[in-house]
Amino acid sequence: MNNASEILRRLADTLESRLPAHGGDPASSYTAKLLHKGPDAFLKKIGEEATEVVMAAKDNDAEKLVYETADLWYHSLVALTYYGKRPEDVLAELARREGLSGLEEKASRPLES
Amino acid sequence: MNNASEILRRLADTLESRLPAHGGDPASSYTAKLLHKGPDAFLKKIGEEATEVVMAAKDNDAEKLVYETADLWYHSLVALTYYGKRPEDVLAELARREGLSGLEEKASRPLES
Amino acid sequence: MNNASEILRRLADTLESRLPAHGGDPASSYTAKLLHKGPDAFLKKIGEEATEVVMAAKDNDAEKLVYETADLWYHSLVALTYYGKRPEDVLAELARREGLSGLEEKASRPLES
Amino acid sequence: MNNASEILRRLADTLESRLPAHGGDPASSYTAKLLHKGPDAFLKKIGEEATEVVMAAKDNDAEKLVYETADLWYHSLVALTYYGKRPEDVLAELARREGLSGLEEKASRPLES
Repeated sequence: MNNASEILRRLADTLESRLPAHGGDPASSYTAKLLHKGPDAFLKKIGEEATEVVMAAKDNDAEKLVYETADLWYHSLVALTYYGKRPEDVLAELARREGLSGLEEKASRPLES
Repeated sequence: MNNASEILRRLADTLESRLPAHGGDPASSYTAKLLHKGPDAFLKKIGEEATEVVMAAKDNDAEKLVYETADLWYHSLVALTYYGKRPEDVLAELARREGLSGLEEKASRPLES
Repeated sequence: MNNASEILRRLADTLESRLPAHGGDPASSYTAKLLHKGPDAFLKKIGEEATEVVMAAKDNDAEKLVYETADLWYHSLVALTYYGKRPEDVLAELARREGLSGLEEKASRPLES
Repeated sequence: MNNASEILRRLADTLESRLPAHGGDPASSYTAKLLHKGPDAFLKKIGEEATEVVMAAKDNDAEKLVYETADLWYHSLVALTYYGKRPEDVLAELARREGLSGLEEKASRPLES
């Protein structure tokens, strides 16, 4: 995945351009409509898509799981955009934890001679 | 975010190493414990973390939103790992849609002279 | 609420009459349509309505909370109907726990002289 | 179910007695602890229990569905209690809709000679 960074950055840029303040048009874009309607519109979708992720997993359907996870992440990104945040912020938080976890795991390991 | 690809790849690699089949140890790793217990353990967390994302947003707390989204994405990645998928697959699906959407939007634009 | 029993019984009876096997017509009844489509249709609504309950509560809007809880319970009842269960079964389980909890609490109380 | 009304009324009374303002003790009662911690504590449970209802249904396990629905309704009742509402209010809303739906369905029926 040499282009994950690129995909996320482009997607976040597109979402930002759909904000009402940036001229997003609710009539021509689903994202602009969600951002225009406000939090309840896209937060409801997060609850719904999380449930669809769970159902796809219970169906043991890996392709559907990928599809529903894309829906869930997409609506999470809409929420982040609305509150002025970006996927980079989420990844930085995940990296921070991984670092902590790495340290933590090292610390709890028995000493090796 | 020149290292989003790197963060996601490393995180997915770590999650894979926590699979029971790869020697993940439920006694020393939270992820290994979730993967060992099976789907209901991590799917329940997806429902819970989605709700925490919604609550952080309703609190208008952008920092907490980032934190809870990291929790939600992390548990989504655990689910993907369990079913043999990776974040690259989700991003490919998001890129595919963006491409479709781009084409769709171009097609519906009035011709420019 | 001298008629809660009556309301729940009548509602459960109506839901049962919407089952495909009982002649429920998807074209004229929302419930029949959900039951005809099968689990994913009404389970998705449970995830969505649970999120709406959470949002109404975060809005501190007690009337909306009642309204959304009615939606959540209604879709729970559709699920129960599909799997051959009734609200009476849920209430019996709640009563059973209350009894256990009553006993448990009594047992843990300091003796009164 | 000649005692659904009784079960719900008693349960709602018990929940009200667990409110901090009514002397509920977080140290000895799970409900009092949830009500003491405030909305996020019990709302998170609503998201989690809704997911467990969905998983029980996908498992085709009717007994577990009843059990998880009892969990979901219980935590809904805790939320109602916190915001000064009761199960009677939810049932009145369900009855109101049933009435509307009944009228609606009658109106759309072809005239019978």
